Amino acid sequence: MTDLGLRDRKKQQTRAALTEAALRLVDERGLDAVTVEDISAAADVSPRTFFNYFATKDEALIGDHTADDDVMRERFLAVEPALSVFEAIQVAAEPVIDAIDRERELWRRRIRVMTANPELVAGLMVRSARSERELIEAIGRRAGVAPDSGWPVLAAGVIGAVFRSALLSWAKSDGRTFADHVHEAFGAIAAGMPDPIKDPK
Amino acid sequence: MTDLGLRDRKKQQTRAALTEAALRLVDERGLDAVTVEDISAAADVSPRTFFNYFATKDEALIGDHTADDDVMRERFLAVEPALSVFEAIQVAAEPVIDAIDRERELWRRRIRVMTANPELVAGLMVRSARSERELIEAIGRRAGVAPDSGWPVLAAGVIGAVFRSALLSWAKSDGRTFADHVHEAFGAIAAGMPDPIKDPK
Repeated sequence: MTDLGLRDRKKQQTRAALTEAALRLVDERGLDAVTVEDISAAADVSPRTFFNYFATKDEALIGDHTADDDVMRERFLAVEPALSVFEAIQVAAEPVIDAIDRERELWRRRIRVMTANPELVAGLMVRSARSERELIEAIGRRAGVAPDSGWPVLAAGVIGAVFRSALLSWAKSDGRTFADHVHEAFGAIAAGMPDPIKDPK
Repeated sequence: MTDLGLRDRKKQQTRAALTEAALRLVDERGLDAVTVEDISAAADVSPRTFFNYFATKDEALIGDHTADDDVMRERFLAVEPALSVFEAIQVAAEPVIDAIDRERELWRRRIRVMTANPELVAGLMVRSARSERELIEAIGRRAGVAPDSGWPVLAAGVIGAVFRSALLSWAKSDGRTFADHVHEAFGAIAAGMPDPIKDPK
């Protein structure tokens, strides 16, 4: 998203390569059958280098999403004030949504690995607690209410539910983009969550 | 909720006393300063008895909510079919909401302890994964769509966000009941999550 020097870009590539290798190996062999040594070898770095990026195997699997979260929050606060919180978050999320659409296979793997190992989801949650707190504050600021007044916490939870459900249904579907699934979910929220139209059987 | 024999009622009381003692001690002293021995002594049982109910200190703090989850899901499936999923869940949740309203001090403590120790929230999430899956299935069944079609996952996530945000704002507020906070949050969902009315400053 931002202009990075060559060295930072190289670092970002190594980090991404480690996460990709970790997800691929765990997806193929199972969580317990993969070591930090395996992941490092697959990403063509030493275990010593691995530990410059991640403290544990679980961390490499989860990856580091703080940069994406920061970009989204900054864009969200900068979107024109006439838009509502839920309209603004969709505009703000566009680059992150597009990046996920471009990495469909990586994300399918990530979702398979997370679904098979729910303890990783818990780790992800603990690590994203700071991002969530900051999103709640940003929502409060945009909406002009106190962050702990209830509504910003509800809104952040609903936004999380939109992205989680869209990720799951997109990973299973063929053809439609992640952006389609996200917009469909936000559409259901905007409509007040009426019952869905029943599947024709 | 259900008719229990004397022995089961006694067990339930011991379990509740252990959770209450655990929350009180951790709230007063901090997570690391409280042992299973402390909790057992405060609840007037032996550590051996403690381990008949909970495998770890964290489990005692989290408590066992599966009974409540089961009651809510069964009621949800039994509510008259004319009601929408979001109307039905509010009817189904009434006894659980009332029970929380009656135990305000315990819940305030629980929320303080969880907020101070986010790793407990992750443990709660892992332990409630089964309940969430079952709720998603129940929602799919009531709405007449496949559980993995996206909408039931979104609906379960939104319901979770409603209860979490209502718990947090109720624990901080004075006067209004938990039921009031839950209904306010469901009202915001039904209205399509428009921006809140700004706080007069």
